[in-house]
Amino acid sequence: MQYDFETIIDRRHTNSAKWNVKPGELPMWIADMDFQTAPEIITALKKRAAFGIFGYEEIPTSYYEAVADWWATEHHFRPQLDWLMFCTGVVPAISSIVRKMTAPGDNVLVQAPVYNMFYHSIENNGRHTLSSDLVENDGQYTIDFTDLEQKLAEPLTTMMILCNPQNPIGIVWSRADLQHIGELALKHHVLILADEIHCDLTLNGQDYTPFSSLSAPVAANSISCISPSKTFNVAALHAATLIMPDQAIRERVSRAINNDELAEPNSFAIPGSIAAYREGHAWVAELRTKIADNQRQLQTFVAKNLPAVKVIEAQATYLIWLDISAVAADASELATFIRSETGLFLSAGDVYRGDGKYFLRINIACPTAELTDGLKRLQAGIEAYMVQD
Amino acid sequence: MQYDFETIIDRRHTNSAKWNVKPGELPMWIADMDFQTAPEIITALKKRAAFGIFGYEEIPTSYYEAVADWWATEHHFRPQLDWLMFCTGVVPAISSIVRKMTAPGDNVLVQAPVYNMFYHSIENNGRHTLSSDLVENDGQYTIDFTDLEQKLAEPLTTMMILCNPQNPIGIVWSRADLQHIGELALKHHVLILADEIHCDLTLNGQDYTPFSSLSAPVAANSISCISPSKTFNVAALHAATLIMPDQAIRERVSRAINNDELAEPNSFAIPGSIAAYREGHAWVAELRTKIADNQRQLQTFVAKNLPAVKVIEAQATYLIWLDISAVAADASELATFIRSETGLFLSAGDVYRGDGKYFLRINIACPTAELTDGLKRLQAGIEAYMVQD
Repeated sequence: MQYDFETIIDRRHTNSAKWNVKPGELPMWIADMDFQTAPEIITALKKRAAFGIFGYEEIPTSYYEAVADWWATEHHFRPQLDWLMFCTGVVPAISSIVRKMTAPGDNVLVQAPVYNMFYHSIENNGRHTLSSDLVENDGQYTIDFTDLEQKLAEPLTTMMILCNPQNPIGIVWSRADLQHIGELALKHHVLILADEIHCDLTLNGQDYTPFSSLSAPVAANSISCISPSKTFNVAALHAATLIMPDQAIRERVSRAINNDELAEPNSFAIPGSIAAYREGHAWVAELRTKIADNQRQLQTFVAKNLPAVKVIEAQATYLIWLDISAVAADASELATFIRSETGLFLSAGDVYRGDGKYFLRINIACPTAELTDGLKRLQAGIEAYMVQD
Repeated sequence: MQYDFETIIDRRHTNSAKWNVKPGELPMWIADMDFQTAPEIITALKKRAAFGIFGYEEIPTSYYEAVADWWATEHHFRPQLDWLMFCTGVVPAISSIVRKMTAPGDNVLVQAPVYNMFYHSIENNGRHTLSSDLVENDGQYTIDFTDLEQKLAEPLTTMMILCNPQNPIGIVWSRADLQHIGELALKHHVLILADEIHCDLTLNGQDYTPFSSLSAPVAANSISCISPSKTFNVAALHAATLIMPDQAIRERVSRAINNDELAEPNSFAIPGSIAAYREGHAWVAELRTKIADNQRQLQTFVAKNLPAVKVIEAQATYLIWLDISAVAADASELATFIRSETGLFLSAGDVYRGDGKYFLRINIACPTAELTDGLKRLQAGIEAYMVQD
């Protein structure tokens, strides 16, 4: 490999939320990678720092061109430049859009188990979560379209938040599934908000379908959220983009994003994003290979050493969904036990709701040595838990 | 001087909102200085860029210590660490606090002419602006306390947004005036939100009084907003701090700031702020001298060459309020004329409301050569306008 994904970087005492842990603990929870970002981005950020003036900024057209060109190259679909709108982050945008495009008391549909921040964005703003839970069969999750349509048809359901690729399971939804969801949403007057933040991290030849590339009427009824944050490990760059093919939606959302003060970039967001999208292709290609390798290492290790645990194969993301239903009835209790016993800090699945209480989520975006350490701790923790049982 | 406030830096084509102007135009409008920030900050930002990992961050205690120590040294008052809360900006915080601490339809009191973004934060969130206009007498603005109390006493008035030092006039409110305002607000159950973003830029020996340093009951009924953004010319660092002596207010505002996604720092906000507050004292001292010098140059020039224009002496800020009532009845028309005639881009005072339509606001935070150029254009523009009249 041309890039370095093996050096362990000490992130303790760097204000990292992930690494705010006790001495000896190993955090493999929050979606934040233990890799430096692409050197091309670091160079751009250093250059921006050296310029030395950090006043109010506007978004140049070159930013939108970089986003659109990246999508064309990586995802075989070039959104129109006027569909794109910068914002400071995907979660802030979701919260703002929920406030603007739905009314208090409305239902917002999700597909649990799903990214827990969706629930905060919905419920902290006085809306109700309605879930059409994903259905698991032998490690494969599918959509129950009958249930989904019933819930989309409820008069108070006005928005659906879709996660593609899906976090925490790592599903890449097929074009057919997405088109089906989109048509049902259109039929029942439900706006689609598609969180596509993990879309660049597909694995093993999987191909992601941008929601905005679906049929024109379906795409027009959607807002997609994309960002370099997961792809390049730059969550605190505070840069994201909304894709909105429909002009009326763009105008309303623009007011939301501006009113909620999410429209202005910090000094580093634009040059960092442009460097990522212009010069980051080779780095991301190697990163995806590294994540796929790590998933294989995890699968091999668990199959050999932890037969009670079932690994759900991720088609995308560096977050792996571990079925621990044969080990414990309460993922939260198991995660707490593993952490106190071995120092390994995982995400308990219950925060994602649905069947999450039978799952742990592990973040495998780290050097091999760290992953190997984490797997040993996972084995020790689960074995100790089962003995204790 | 140890630091450089004289080199002209080309900011065209750098995504600068201020410098998004036609070739040959000279922008002296938005509150953004044409100086590089303190070299100590640039060094800290370069170091942060070089670290190369930009994941989710938490706020370290050392940030709050740096803020409190700066206040102790510069403003002779050290806020308690637990009174302080990081947020991504003063205007975003004001909008969020208006939403959280008042109800739709309430009155929010201001003192026009005042910073125009206050009106956006109030009115875009469905509240009403109620102004107790400042009263001008021979270049001195004062508060009509009878009018202020009547408006604070209105049942629908639930918040007052105070600007100290005041933008656009540059008034540093006295401790007695602030205490008087605070006691009236307390009597009439009105929460004080004090925007103190310009507090470090007092001139000619003026001393600013932090609202949180007033009597304990008055301070407890207040939220103050501070930031390195104006002081160090780092608006797009996206860093600010709220000072809230009262625990119940802190808890409610914490929910607002978190819910509105204004609580998480970008990768550069914390190291940049710490460098500013720890190592920026000497730079700010020189900056204040430079701004005072520039104000003197402006005053001398206008007295000599533009007798129809009256300069309101600023006790703080690099924004100077020019009384053009003897020249034009409509500042907006005059500003448009000056820009089209000479390329000088000033802020027309009407956006600040009150008596603003008789004023222009000029930003003098620039190298001497730029100021000299601006003053010549101002003279040419006003002379041409008067001849045309």
